[in-house]
Amino acid sequence: MAIGIGLIGMGVVGGGVARILNERADFFKNVKGLDLDIRKVAVRDLSKPRAIDLPTDRFTTDPMDVINDPSVQIVIEVMGGIDPAHDLILSALKAGKDVVTANKALLAEQGDDLFEMAAQKQVGLGFEASICGGIPIVQTLSQGLVGNNIESLYGILNGTTNYILTRMTEAGANFDPMLKEAQDKGFAEADPTMDIDGTDAAQKLALLCRLAFRAKLSPSNIIKEGISHITALDIDFARELGYTIKLLGIAKAVGDRIEARVHPAMVPHGELLADIRNEFNAVEIVGSAVDSQVFYGKGAGEMPTASAVVADLIGLAEKRQAGVPSIGSALAPLPDAKLIPLDEVNTGCYCRFTVNDRPGVLAQIATLFSGVGISIETVIQHGRSESGTVPLIMITHDATEAAMRTAISRINDLSFVTEDAQVIRILHP
Amino acid sequence: MAIGIGLIGMGVVGGGVARILNERADFFKNVKGLDLDIRKVAVRDLSKPRAIDLPTDRFTTDPMDVINDPSVQIVIEVMGGIDPAHDLILSALKAGKDVVTANKALLAEQGDDLFEMAAQKQVGLGFEASICGGIPIVQTLSQGLVGNNIESLYGILNGTTNYILTRMTEAGANFDPMLKEAQDKGFAEADPTMDIDGTDAAQKLALLCRLAFRAKLSPSNIIKEGISHITALDIDFARELGYTIKLLGIAKAVGDRIEARVHPAMVPHGELLADIRNEFNAVEIVGSAVDSQVFYGKGAGEMPTASAVVADLIGLAEKRQAGVPSIGSALAPLPDAKLIPLDEVNTGCYCRFTVNDRPGVLAQIATLFSGVGISIETVIQHGRSESGTVPLIMITHDATEAAMRTAISRINDLSFVTEDAQVIRILHP
Repeated sequence: MAIGIGLIGMGVVGGGVARILNERADFFKNVKGLDLDIRKVAVRDLSKPRAIDLPTDRFTTDPMDVINDPSVQIVIEVMGGIDPAHDLILSALKAGKDVVTANKALLAEQGDDLFEMAAQKQVGLGFEASICGGIPIVQTLSQGLVGNNIESLYGILNGTTNYILTRMTEAGANFDPMLKEAQDKGFAEADPTMDIDGTDAAQKLALLCRLAFRAKLSPSNIIKEGISHITALDIDFARELGYTIKLLGIAKAVGDRIEARVHPAMVPHGELLADIRNEFNAVEIVGSAVDSQVFYGKGAGEMPTASAVVADLIGLAEKRQAGVPSIGSALAPLPDAKLIPLDEVNTGCYCRFTVNDRPGVLAQIATLFSGVGISIETVIQHGRSESGTVPLIMITHDATEAAMRTAISRINDLSFVTEDAQVIRILHP
Repeated sequence: MAIGIGLIGMGVVGGGVARILNERADFFKNVKGLDLDIRKVAVRDLSKPRAIDLPTDRFTTDPMDVINDPSVQIVIEVMGGIDPAHDLILSALKAGKDVVTANKALLAEQGDDLFEMAAQKQVGLGFEASICGGIPIVQTLSQGLVGNNIESLYGILNGTTNYILTRMTEAGANFDPMLKEAQDKGFAEADPTMDIDGTDAAQKLALLCRLAFRAKLSPSNIIKEGISHITALDIDFARELGYTIKLLGIAKAVGDRIEARVHPAMVPHGELLADIRNEFNAVEIVGSAVDSQVFYGKGAGEMPTASAVVADLIGLAEKRQAGVPSIGSALAPLPDAKLIPLDEVNTGCYCRFTVNDRPGVLAQIATLFSGVGISIETVIQHGRSESGTVPLIMITHDATEAAMRTAISRINDLSFVTEDAQVIRILHP
């Protein structure tokens, strides 16, 4: 018997899904024993040409037609946005349909009742496509590493910022021109705010935490810092010190609490994450049995995202075909994550001070650090500049954010410090 | 109702599996709804102390007791070796039990009837642990990338050789001392033949081809070359030319044929595979929808391997619990792979000639290359040596193996060539 598929949205990703279902229909039929039939497709404009050849009566402008169609068993939501996608997915789940979505913002910001409804109705809510595009990271966390207690994870979760930082590193350029280049090449949107301020990465990190640590948290509670303040000078010093600057999503289980943060980090050369270039994504997972694993691939784009949607779809269709309930249940109900507050976060830091080049500067700054118990690992000070100010770089040993903030604030107040300090946390995975 | 587990073998990996089942029993029960009970364990010596605390009557020295126990539904084979493991697994499958094994040599060399029996009986034959330890590569190929036509894959599949090559690269050392070091550190066995001659990697590649291209092939039909002839000199020149030498397993779909080979390869700097160090494994998969993905982790060891066994076990237990047949069927029956013969393999090559340093050498070698249609991309010749012989390095453009072999044989016959040429293929993924 055919499994009925409904699509809400037929844009870039929806078109890719339809293409894969069409091209691999024989494979799904002969190898997986699945006859998948796209029964209903909701689109905004019926007159637009479509990637797939379907009878006209299968298209509708009303998404509820897809959900209410009794022959549709699995609904694919690829319209994006929170409203009305949230209510549509909720209706579909309530009606006992499996749902597959690429809608990370929705699930991260307002997904709790969706996960709960899926659990209650014993239907699937697939969201592989919402984190790192085609990389099967949801499947890996929920199945492949099921024998592991997940200890920590480190992700390059946003392709736009990784592209910009890669280009800044390789071209020795500053942020603004490289953002412009990313926009010209289609790696950054016209309004890139959600990418460059870390919001997109925080949404993905919240979903990863749900999977890895079985706790729910709002992206707004994740410690967050973007990349627009990173300069070519920092990247140069990072290289000299043996680091590459990456925007990381970091989450760790610490006792019964979780540390979750998104910020630019100095990644030591030799770590695989330091080598992830351009628009690619990668996630490093540290599990109690497997130790460190890294998963790398394209985090966005029509076909990678469609690949993840189809992976979820096939998994759910196999369960439908066999008549067994889905594991949607595994992600709800979950307790709220107990988050470690920013003040307690403990890292080494790269600090770049801009100072008037005169005797005693280094001693005074070092004294302020030691006053709050922070010790210095490395200092770089190159020659003299004509302007009279020079950059002074210090790498600190691990210290709490609270101590670091106190020290930096005192240092910024020193008379010979001409600009606020640049502080970038160091990754010790 | 509890799912009955039987273990054949309780060595390093079996002990790790028992540990995970013990430590994560609550998780499997509360989250997955699975009550897993180790009902029978076959060991060689009943008097040896064990990693798990089980009633004495659950141990036996006869593996058939495990298979014949009516309360055992899933059999884990971790005894290793081909005989009697093959017949034991066959008996278990025939009796309608699911089987999980880490036995790559067995499945690759004599697995066909096992896959067929699993398909016939609609039971599972899990072998995640047999390729790249804890990296969920079997699951990725069979589920995560199910929407993709797999175009090619490139793997660092053997930790021993990767450790040796990494140490040769970083210490500037030759093969023999680094093999010794690997043995001392436990990364190479006392008899390392199967690792260093590429047999182990070829076995894994044969299984990957079964998954990726749905065709069966014997490891003995895979083009194979080991690493013992690689020298510190080659590694130095590789670095100068922008490459790192890695032992790769390479498989590609070319029309309806498959190219499958294991050999040392020059991996260009900038490729993630060039950065995989020490005993780690990595597999790059190129899929029609996702493009390139890389999966990285520990390829061996007690707990990584146990992690993969447990992942298979949980997947099969969930199916048992739900009363649905397993997908063991998907890997049999399969057609024999049509393999591309060595003569037709087409790559660029690094060639190191040892020549008497006199005028006309370069011209004569270049003439012999061009005589078979091979063009030269790069030449390196450094200064003069006191011994009178010097290394002459040439990088060729792509050429067939047949043409390359003809040219090399003619060059080796030249009077001023004092040693057989060293030839290492170049990776252009």
